[in-house]
Amino acid sequence: MPAPQDGVGYLGPAGTFCEEGLRRLDPDTAESAWPAPTVAAALETLREGVLAEALVPFENSVEGSVSATLDELIRGEPLVITGEVHVEVEFALMARPGTDLAAVRRIATHPVAEAQTRDWIAAHLPGAEVIPESSTARAAVLVAAEVYDAAIAAPLAAERHGLNILVGGIADRPGAVTRFIRLARPGHIPEATGADVTTLVAYLRHNHAGALLDLLNQFAMRGVDLVRLESRPTGEALGQYCFAIEALGHLREPRVAEALRGLHRVCAQVRFLGSYPRAQAAQTPVPEVATAQAYDAARVWVERLSR
Amino acid sequence: MPAPQDGVGYLGPAGTFCEEGLRRLDPDTAESAWPAPTVAAALETLREGVLAEALVPFENSVEGSVSATLDELIRGEPLVITGEVHVEVEFALMARPGTDLAAVRRIATHPVAEAQTRDWIAAHLPGAEVIPESSTARAAVLVAAEVYDAAIAAPLAAERHGLNILVGGIADRPGAVTRFIRLARPGHIPEATGADVTTLVAYLRHNHAGALLDLLNQFAMRGVDLVRLESRPTGEALGQYCFAIEALGHLREPRVAEALRGLHRVCAQVRFLGSYPRAQAAQTPVPEVATAQAYDAARVWVERLSR
Amino acid sequence: MPAPQDGVGYLGPAGTFCEEGLRRLDPDTAESAWPAPTVAAALETLREGVLAEALVPFENSVEGSVSATLDELIRGEPLVITGEVHVEVEFALMARPGTDLAAVRRIATHPVAEAQTRDWIAAHLPGAEVIPESSTARAAVLVAAEVYDAAIAAPLAAERHGLNILVGGIADRPGAVTRFIRLARPGHIPEATGADVTTLVAYLRHNHAGALLDLLNQFAMRGVDLVRLESRPTGEALGQYCFAIEALGHLREPRVAEALRGLHRVCAQVRFLGSYPRAQAAQTPVPEVATAQAYDAARVWVERLSR
Amino acid sequence: MPAPQDGVGYLGPAGTFCEEGLRRLDPDTAESAWPAPTVAAALETLREGVLAEALVPFENSVEGSVSATLDELIRGEPLVITGEVHVEVEFALMARPGTDLAAVRRIATHPVAEAQTRDWIAAHLPGAEVIPESSTARAAVLVAAEVYDAAIAAPLAAERHGLNILVGGIADRPGAVTRFIRLARPGHIPEATGADVTTLVAYLRHNHAGALLDLLNQFAMRGVDLVRLESRPTGEALGQYCFAIEALGHLREPRVAEALRGLHRVCAQVRFLGSYPRAQAAQTPVPEVATAQAYDAARVWVERLSR
Repeated sequence: MPAPQDGVGYLGPAGTFCEEGLRRLDPDTAESAWPAPTVAAALETLREGVLAEALVPFENSVEGSVSATLDELIRGEPLVITGEVHVEVEFALMARPGTDLAAVRRIATHPVAEAQTRDWIAAHLPGAEVIPESSTARAAVLVAAEVYDAAIAAPLAAERHGLNILVGGIADRPGAVTRFIRLARPGHIPEATGADVTTLVAYLRHNHAGALLDLLNQFAMRGVDLVRLESRPTGEALGQYCFAIEALGHLREPRVAEALRGLHRVCAQVRFLGSYPRAQAAQTPVPEVATAQAYDAARVWVERLSR
Repeated sequence: MPAPQDGVGYLGPAGTFCEEGLRRLDPDTAESAWPAPTVAAALETLREGVLAEALVPFENSVEGSVSATLDELIRGEPLVITGEVHVEVEFALMARPGTDLAAVRRIATHPVAEAQTRDWIAAHLPGAEVIPESSTARAAVLVAAEVYDAAIAAPLAAERHGLNILVGGIADRPGAVTRFIRLARPGHIPEATGADVTTLVAYLRHNHAGALLDLLNQFAMRGVDLVRLESRPTGEALGQYCFAIEALGHLREPRVAEALRGLHRVCAQVRFLGSYPRAQAAQTPVPEVATAQAYDAARVWVERLSR
Repeated sequence: MPAPQDGVGYLGPAGTFCEEGLRRLDPDTAESAWPAPTVAAALETLREGVLAEALVPFENSVEGSVSATLDELIRGEPLVITGEVHVEVEFALMARPGTDLAAVRRIATHPVAEAQTRDWIAAHLPGAEVIPESSTARAAVLVAAEVYDAAIAAPLAAERHGLNILVGGIADRPGAVTRFIRLARPGHIPEATGADVTTLVAYLRHNHAGALLDLLNQFAMRGVDLVRLESRPTGEALGQYCFAIEALGHLREPRVAEALRGLHRVCAQVRFLGSYPRAQAAQTPVPEVATAQAYDAARVWVERLSR
Repeated sequence: MPAPQDGVGYLGPAGTFCEEGLRRLDPDTAESAWPAPTVAAALETLREGVLAEALVPFENSVEGSVSATLDELIRGEPLVITGEVHVEVEFALMARPGTDLAAVRRIATHPVAEAQTRDWIAAHLPGAEVIPESSTARAAVLVAAEVYDAAIAAPLAAERHGLNILVGGIADRPGAVTRFIRLARPGHIPEATGADVTTLVAYLRHNHAGALLDLLNQFAMRGVDLVRLESRPTGEALGQYCFAIEALGHLREPRVAEALRGLHRVCAQVRFLGSYPRAQAAQTPVPEVATAQAYDAARVWVERLSR
């Protein structure tokens, strides 16, 4: 199934949590969306102009950052994030109609899903073999194809691939959440809503504690809170990192714009990855000294002095 | 093969880069060391007191942190790092004697190795299928067992499992390095050498830019440089992180001890993961205002004032 | 009148606000105390071991720092502050019995008192000449000696020198307060009360914004609030300053001791000028992360790790 | 002698170091300039629009800030500094022609001059009485009028008032320098020269260490060095200060403008007191990350992102 021109792609196959995220974010396009085989394929197709948008996983509350996505955003042709959605991760054990729990010998799933259901498997299916597959949905496909006895996957995968759910809710740590981001080619930034997040990647000029302090200070000084700071290797050498940063606020707020200008000055390089509405739409509180009004008043004051 | 009492374990199977690292760090014990099936197994066996030491991967210059190791150190019973070794990652395509490059259809390897040789495969074996296995060494074992045609693994794996190297040096980005750490149960800290690193995990009390600044300031104020800062989800909820930190210096230096005391005060929780000699043994430069002499003189001065 | 051996001195002559301060701080010794002609004389006599203590003005809520006192403390043989007292400055116009307000032509007073009553004089005695004298009490003495018609001085001066108060409360800005400090030779520090202040002088190593930030950070990082920061020329050249600093807390609190050790390391020079109870005895709030308990717990934790 | 319409005033009387400063700064107007009796009189006349400019002392390398000037600038109707000049303070003992050193009993001078020649007087004229006058030049006038035997004043005062210099160069600490500032009503700022200083007064919102750090950070973060920081009481209560700040750079440089905007946001109040060429005309080094080019590039980058 090729990617539709000007359509939407997501990390497939059909039945992943990613498809579930797309259904919530954009129900109309979810039906006709293209299930990309890998994050890299989704983003490459988007960069080439075939797709208009793509939804891919970015972060999980248990496993952390999805390195494949982050590294693609850091290293490839620039893309920007235009939205996000959070999906609760619910794992189910599923098999072909007619298969009993007692008959399950070989279970296929993705390694991340295996890591999050390990205790349940050890307790309930201690003798079963677990085979890693490239996605939970592919595991479900292969169960339908009679390659394996059962799959651990999202409930949606059972529906999609004609399987029965033997046991639902088998995550060892219930309540895990995966965050998916919608990507587009640069050129359009969603309007500020007052409950936005800005994502970027910064490379320090120097590799010491003071340089990172200077970077964080660019935000703190303007009353901008960070929600995430993630070092990633630049790939050059061990000990060389860049920093993926997520800050509360929108590029079109003066405090965020000034922080970005500050980063541009003090960093070796900065890549802007988007300003977009948060999945949790609570308004971001802005300190009195950092509101757009405070910025405007300060600008007017200095302009009048300079005349 | 069970773990030897009081012996050394490493992430197996035999022939991984981890065994190569152990050979360099401790040639005498490498022969009799136990190849653990997973990082978790190695660490659990160490915690139970069966092993005395274990070597596991911690970080890769291209792929970044090894989450499995870091999360084990963060969440399980405390262990401490007592040494480190860097191993250049060299990938080779290997097959049973008699197999030609032209005959290779199905290649087994670990997903990280696949990611680092993707361009080479696309250029030289565009039609081959790549099957993910749980380690590069296991891929070699399965080639020897005639399950697959070829494996991408460390050259050592060919030697160990009786395979021929078809093509060596196939990494897309040569020069990648993996860092392995030697772990032990708490109770002994290696002597300070002047070229040491201290690893720890800190949990902020509050989740904002200022709290992270305070934390980093504890180091910067005492002239202690950071070499790595890595956020990891605490697993509680999306947006809740702790920070894995690596700083140049040894717990028994006054500047590092004071920084750690500062962290203990301002953080919700701190876990000390060890002070040990760096793989690159260059002496750490200490600012004049942060030497042991400067600390001693300051302590004597205040003691005299307080009398 | 010579200074009494082991006695107490103050900035005289009798009848100044300084004598008033001494009466409040130490009523028993006020009677027999020695009125020194100048701040320098009081401190020199103290340094020579003739006096045991001296009370001198340090700061005024309108006029600011008393440079003569501060410079003596900065430059001379070390002395330490052991206490402080605040005296409300109340100015009265006083004359010999029989003199009417209408007959006042020549008014003597100290320039600081003149500055604080200028509007009143302009409004009520626009034609009078104001003659500067070295103290308000000396002005009263000279009125008693019939050199001038009237003096502007503390009400106590009228009582002391047999004058009548023509008009009381003539300060342009009522409510001014002068702060006096009690000085002794080094060797004894008052016990911590929980409502203390620590005074010191610090010389930066470098003369730029960052160096002063580092200095202030030594306090902020340990939860120590500053109440005063005063630059004073070192006398070497224009643009060379040292900083007189007053911080809430006592040298024997761990957070203050650590801040002082930090200053000792990062500054070119530090002079400790005392830890003593505040005149306003409200307990100083200490942040949870900087209490003696937090410091002790941190010390014990690191000691246990280092073993 | 009244102030000339649109003329220049200075702190008189004729023969002070202030007149000497005016001669250096503006030789043409010095001849016809008006010697104001006090700093307050000079500034009031300027505020009323009678004078166009006034030169007054601002700072001395031994005695520190001239509080009278600073407080006038802080509290009165706004004025701005448009230039500065440094004058070496040279003190001479002068008398009427015919007076011998041996005959000097009563010496008049200003208290600041007395403080700077105290050791010389004690060594060479131990029996002489020193009478404080409101200026050194007035002391010279009164010697000419036969009120006193001798005056300690600037050599220029001898020339102006027909006295002989008995002994020159009698300062205890030679090399003292006084800095004079030229003031005007707001409305015109001198062009940036690359070697400028900006003077302002800031009131903190809160009275703790962190608030002052935030203020200093506004400069440090933009690569702006401070040359002076002086706390002054606001006059409200003991312990309430504002801060007079001098920074290297000009309001029309983007880094200084941004720092001022930052101050305007975080401070309770800011008063701009001028940007003007330094007396020492060495170019101010600007960090690479804070040049106008760096600011322009950052502005353009963010504008392009925001489109």
